[in-house]
Amino acid sequence: MTEPAAAGPALLAEVLRGDRVESRHRGHALVCDARGEVVAAWGNPDEPVFPRSSCKMLQALPLVESGAAAGLSTERLALACASHSGAGMHVTRVADWLGALGLGERDLRCGSQVPDDAAERHRLRDAGESPCQLHNNCSGKHAGFLMLNRHLGGGPEYVEFDHPVQLAARNAFEEMCGAPIRGWGVDGCSAPAFETTLRGLGTAMARMADPRGLGAARGEAARRLVAAMAEHPLLVAGEGRACSELMAAMPGGVAVKTGAEAVYVAILPGRGLGVALKVEDGGTRGSECAIAALLVRLGALDAGHPAARARLAAPILSRRGAGIGMIRPAAAFYEAGRRL
Amino acid sequence: MTEPAAAGPALLAEVLRGDRVESRHRGHALVCDARGEVVAAWGNPDEPVFPRSSCKMLQALPLVESGAAAGLSTERLALACASHSGAGMHVTRVADWLGALGLGERDLRCGSQVPDDAAERHRLRDAGESPCQLHNNCSGKHAGFLMLNRHLGGGPEYVEFDHPVQLAARNAFEEMCGAPIRGWGVDGCSAPAFETTLRGLGTAMARMADPRGLGAARGEAARRLVAAMAEHPLLVAGEGRACSELMAAMPGGVAVKTGAEAVYVAILPGRGLGVALKVEDGGTRGSECAIAALLVRLGALDAGHPAARARLAAPILSRRGAGIGMIRPAAAFYEAGRRL
Repeated sequence: MTEPAAAGPALLAEVLRGDRVESRHRGHALVCDARGEVVAAWGNPDEPVFPRSSCKMLQALPLVESGAAAGLSTERLALACASHSGAGMHVTRVADWLGALGLGERDLRCGSQVPDDAAERHRLRDAGESPCQLHNNCSGKHAGFLMLNRHLGGGPEYVEFDHPVQLAARNAFEEMCGAPIRGWGVDGCSAPAFETTLRGLGTAMARMADPRGLGAARGEAARRLVAAMAEHPLLVAGEGRACSELMAAMPGGVAVKTGAEAVYVAILPGRGLGVALKVEDGGTRGSECAIAALLVRLGALDAGHPAARARLAAPILSRRGAGIGMIRPAAAFYEAGRRL
Repeated sequence: MTEPAAAGPALLAEVLRGDRVESRHRGHALVCDARGEVVAAWGNPDEPVFPRSSCKMLQALPLVESGAAAGLSTERLALACASHSGAGMHVTRVADWLGALGLGERDLRCGSQVPDDAAERHRLRDAGESPCQLHNNCSGKHAGFLMLNRHLGGGPEYVEFDHPVQLAARNAFEEMCGAPIRGWGVDGCSAPAFETTLRGLGTAMARMADPRGLGAARGEAARRLVAAMAEHPLLVAGEGRACSELMAAMPGGVAVKTGAEAVYVAILPGRGLGVALKVEDGGTRGSECAIAALLVRLGALDAGHPAARARLAAPILSRRGAGIGMIRPAAAFYEAGRRL
């Protein structure tokens, strides 16, 4: 089933105006198993990639496998893996979690963010309030960092590269990817952003899907985190967001996660497979289209489900509401009807 | 000075995280003269392109050359070429223009749009008002269409493909590009969106810059429109927008214009050259970076000007305000110091 891999990026998605191609998204995508064997690939499997928020479930592994999160609710586990919209349902839950730790918003180091959620944005403006660090889409991940930090006894600057919390996150990341990090930068939330290859990221997702080869503690942590994501789609992202809608549309506990700059991953426990893709230009409309196409090809997503259709044939409307174009998967990438 | 052209897209801009490349924007770009001779090109000069809003000054030619706009202020000419932010300064001027024609918002066919301008957006919300068609970034173009329509005596549905207003716009577009349209679609504002090649679009911009080969009426119309754009940068776009800041930064009456899906053009009257570029993925951060790099290479823009620096080394900040990355022109495209 292996498809030929090229060194350059592959065409993944097209933007149509009427019946003419107006724009194109290229990138790299692969499906692999827990041994790191590539089942299918487009573009370059060894392309360097910053997973960004797509690897939050890897960063959350130490929280769970250390025992720091013993008895933690599935809602909080899902929030630890979330890039949430900063809606009320997210903000109050993160605040409650911090409160249960005897901590507060001031202990976060993620920075403030204007929430994506329109209702919360309007509520803030009407109340004369400013967005705070709880609104940061990563505040759940940071609450998890703080909970692990209490367990490890580290200092308050838990986002520093060599802080015990980040060393634990990096170790888990490298072990799951099966390779040392290629480099690192700083993420928008001030935590270290690790660089791996697409193959490394896909391998890590396959291991989340099929944790039999991991140790007992890590295997159980992987199962709990993936199950929590699949159980609480709206906490992982928010209303109308691709991650939430796609997870809600799929049976079988499939988890998906976006990352900034158009990374997308999927974890398919039923098949023990992982998916990783990166649209090289960072355009999220392209990565959402491509992950939906791959999930359909893998038999995980029904192409007729509204959540799928909204990404496989995303309409472009005029300001008067007329359909004037569409975003769709590239034909060679999608190959509708051909299952993987 | 001609550079080798390839059939595929060229690397135009890179997104860095720390010192690592995280994302890439590819596309097509060229500089040409009024005869359509390509002075320099990257990617494919014959790439099909929808100019979208980048060709509003071409769509405005019939308004001026027909005599319909005799005595029209330079502010209104600039608005006819604008993709404005829907700020108060834009909305009131378009409303006044329509009022002077004995027309109103209801006569527009562009559709309503939530304005980009934050102050106007907040004003609307606080006043309990909804955005209207005046807020549409194309409302100035449509006011120009309506003024031309009064002169031509056409019916009210002036955005239909075969309406006299659109036939006039298409004729001007084809004559300036030097070729029949390759196809068409519908733009977000419901007007026809014509397809040409990058070479066609660049030729049209060079003819706007050097109108000596055009007839007297069209030549004068081209000069008036380009001068109006350069005279009123804020009316063509808005506060903080690339078009406005770049035009304000350049002497010599250089006009630039963005179009949706990452098209950018420049008109250099002093050198009689036109520039056209398209980032194939539609990412505006890439096209703004690329046009700034080309304007510097052409000697039109000082690389040290804040408006240039903001696009040649656009900082990426963490939510806490730390510099963690940058958007910059691709090295082979920029070739800093090498003038064209």
